[in-house]
Amino acid sequence: MTTEGTTEAARPAATLPSTALVVGCGLIGTSVALALRSRDVQVHLRDAVPGVAEVAASVGAGTVAPAEAPDLVVVAVPPSVVPATVLELLAEFPEAVVTDVASVKAPVARAVAGTPGASRFVGGHPMAGTERSGPTAGSALLFEGRPWAVVPLPESSDRALALVTAVVHAVEAVPTVLEADRHDEAVALVSHVPHVVSVLTAGLLASAPREHVDLAGPGLRDVTRIAGSATGMWLQILDSNAGAVTTLLKSLRGDLDRVLDALDAGGDVLAGRLSDVLDAGRAGTQRIPGKHGEIRTVSASVFVPVDDRPGVLSQLMADIGDSGVNIEDFRIDHEYGRPVGLAQVEVAADRADHLTTSLTTRGWPAYR
Amino acid sequence: MTTEGTTEAARPAATLPSTALVVGCGLIGTSVALALRSRDVQVHLRDAVPGVAEVAASVGAGTVAPAEAPDLVVVAVPPSVVPATVLELLAEFPEAVVTDVASVKAPVARAVAGTPGASRFVGGHPMAGTERSGPTAGSALLFEGRPWAVVPLPESSDRALALVTAVVHAVEAVPTVLEADRHDEAVALVSHVPHVVSVLTAGLLASAPREHVDLAGPGLRDVTRIAGSATGMWLQILDSNAGAVTTLLKSLRGDLDRVLDALDAGGDVLAGRLSDVLDAGRAGTQRIPGKHGEIRTVSASVFVPVDDRPGVLSQLMADIGDSGVNIEDFRIDHEYGRPVGLAQVEVAADRADHLTTSLTTRGWPAYR
Repeated sequence: MTTEGTTEAARPAATLPSTALVVGCGLIGTSVALALRSRDVQVHLRDAVPGVAEVAASVGAGTVAPAEAPDLVVVAVPPSVVPATVLELLAEFPEAVVTDVASVKAPVARAVAGTPGASRFVGGHPMAGTERSGPTAGSALLFEGRPWAVVPLPESSDRALALVTAVVHAVEAVPTVLEADRHDEAVALVSHVPHVVSVLTAGLLASAPREHVDLAGPGLRDVTRIAGSATGMWLQILDSNAGAVTTLLKSLRGDLDRVLDALDAGGDVLAGRLSDVLDAGRAGTQRIPGKHGEIRTVSASVFVPVDDRPGVLSQLMADIGDSGVNIEDFRIDHEYGRPVGLAQVEVAADRADHLTTSLTTRGWPAYR
Repeated sequence: MTTEGTTEAARPAATLPSTALVVGCGLIGTSVALALRSRDVQVHLRDAVPGVAEVAASVGAGTVAPAEAPDLVVVAVPPSVVPATVLELLAEFPEAVVTDVASVKAPVARAVAGTPGASRFVGGHPMAGTERSGPTAGSALLFEGRPWAVVPLPESSDRALALVTAVVHAVEAVPTVLEADRHDEAVALVSHVPHVVSVLTAGLLASAPREHVDLAGPGLRDVTRIAGSATGMWLQILDSNAGAVTTLLKSLRGDLDRVLDALDAGGDVLAGRLSDVLDAGRAGTQRIPGKHGEIRTVSASVFVPVDDRPGVLSQLMADIGDSGVNIEDFRIDHEYGRPVGLAQVEVAADRADHLTTSLTTRGWPAYR
């Protein structure tokens, strides 16, 4: 078995399945089906609501004809019914490799471990999605460049792991192999706790006076953006990963208490204690993978006020292209009370002056 | 005096000052000076380090020749020395209106209230900045479209308020009139507490295993982006606004404890309690001003995988422009491990399908 924690292992020689059954034709299931179809895998579709599978078939995701002996079964049903569904399908198809796409892995791992079919099961979790749902939202491109956690059981066979990893590569995602509990700790850290924190910060705005919120800038928008997601899915996620989320939230509460103590002390004591907290935060941001999987490089922002007309941005992009400076990130901020946007162009720090000069020369009011 | 809480009051008839003195030639002071110069105000520059004022003068921000009787004095020195500096300048120029740009307003309001010059003082706080500092980072365009809090004392004269408001309009910022304590509560809410929360979340990453952080997606990057800022300025800000920040952080800690209780309970109890917290977060995000100062409209994302070459983005922008759909927001995500970016184009929800079809027709692999 591949060593736990291996990231982007060499592409395995394993071939793709000839036939796959996708169970659950929502956004993720349909997208997996479409991606497999585009690699010439024969895909069968099943959904608790037959009409949903038919819609998925109508957008080219496969056939609703029953699968006889699929090489692979992909379980993409709602999180709370994943463990039972995986067990049923391992029994129904005694030769098939079975995988799932649930965002919390310990519940299904606990349910399957020790059962007769366990060697044929390898869990999975694609880190992708949009705010839409249902089969018509599916896209063969949904997983391109996204991380996809591959979560074998101790008894998973090499064949099962190789087949699931081959599918991840085939849909252009980037596999990371993790044990179930480690996976759940990881997503608590990079997804579930940030979501709770974003929600709590946004919650403070709900009862605030209008003129307070009017002073909001891009920083607040960044921190609270993900708090706007639908609540139903998040209740299931937080419930099923309550242990790992609780551990991290308690750690965060300890740090929050240290901040409150420092604010209460004030002056030099505050400076000493808060410096450590602020420095740890900066160090944390440096660990998030940046462009091309490298550690985030030192970048700088060039700001360009732009009129709010469609052609303006394409001209700006063309002029940035002509400057020869590559864009690391690009944002548009539509500022409060003004029919104008502020484009923020993030580039390598040692290229920012060149870009500013180049744009100014072409008549843009660019500044750093 | 204008009613407190007035946002974007009708542009006052007050004329700009003929002569202004800017004290403190860092990023904000130099930018104010450049913006006033571009409106034909005569600007004098002063800095505790004379060479810094000379650099500001060399980039066209004004003259280092002493000011004799300026109409306006703008105090843009480091936060901790603002109150003393404002008092000195009110005494030195007994006819001038004096304003400042410190990000916390109660300390200077407390220092000035009740002094002989108090009627000539109106505080200010431009909600703008870049990650750079110093006079060479200054730009006359820095304040365009940004909120600028205008913070009079109870004894501030109408003349002083009108002059400071006229300056805010002249630099193309959007004034909001607030009393000092209300201002400090507002920035605790929209800036200081989000910063602490972002820092605490990023701090959890500092000691996490590499393969956990490898699963990071755009949500984590959003929440932790502002945690990367320099720590020195933030120590001063949090110290001087400790009261308002503490009140909100304690409220947030109460909400966090409710989340922890719900996670501990699990099941239906969890669902009931967490639904309220998640719904409050969603409601909060709806209150943040969006494009053109309106409440955020319902928008949807269209995703377009793009090659990492300069010309590609300008072609994409041109094709979006040709589709006739206006861009609400635009992001590029450079995904882990891949030489490709994922452009996320946010548009009005009822235009997303049209844009997707239009881009697909032109050969882009766009999806919703």
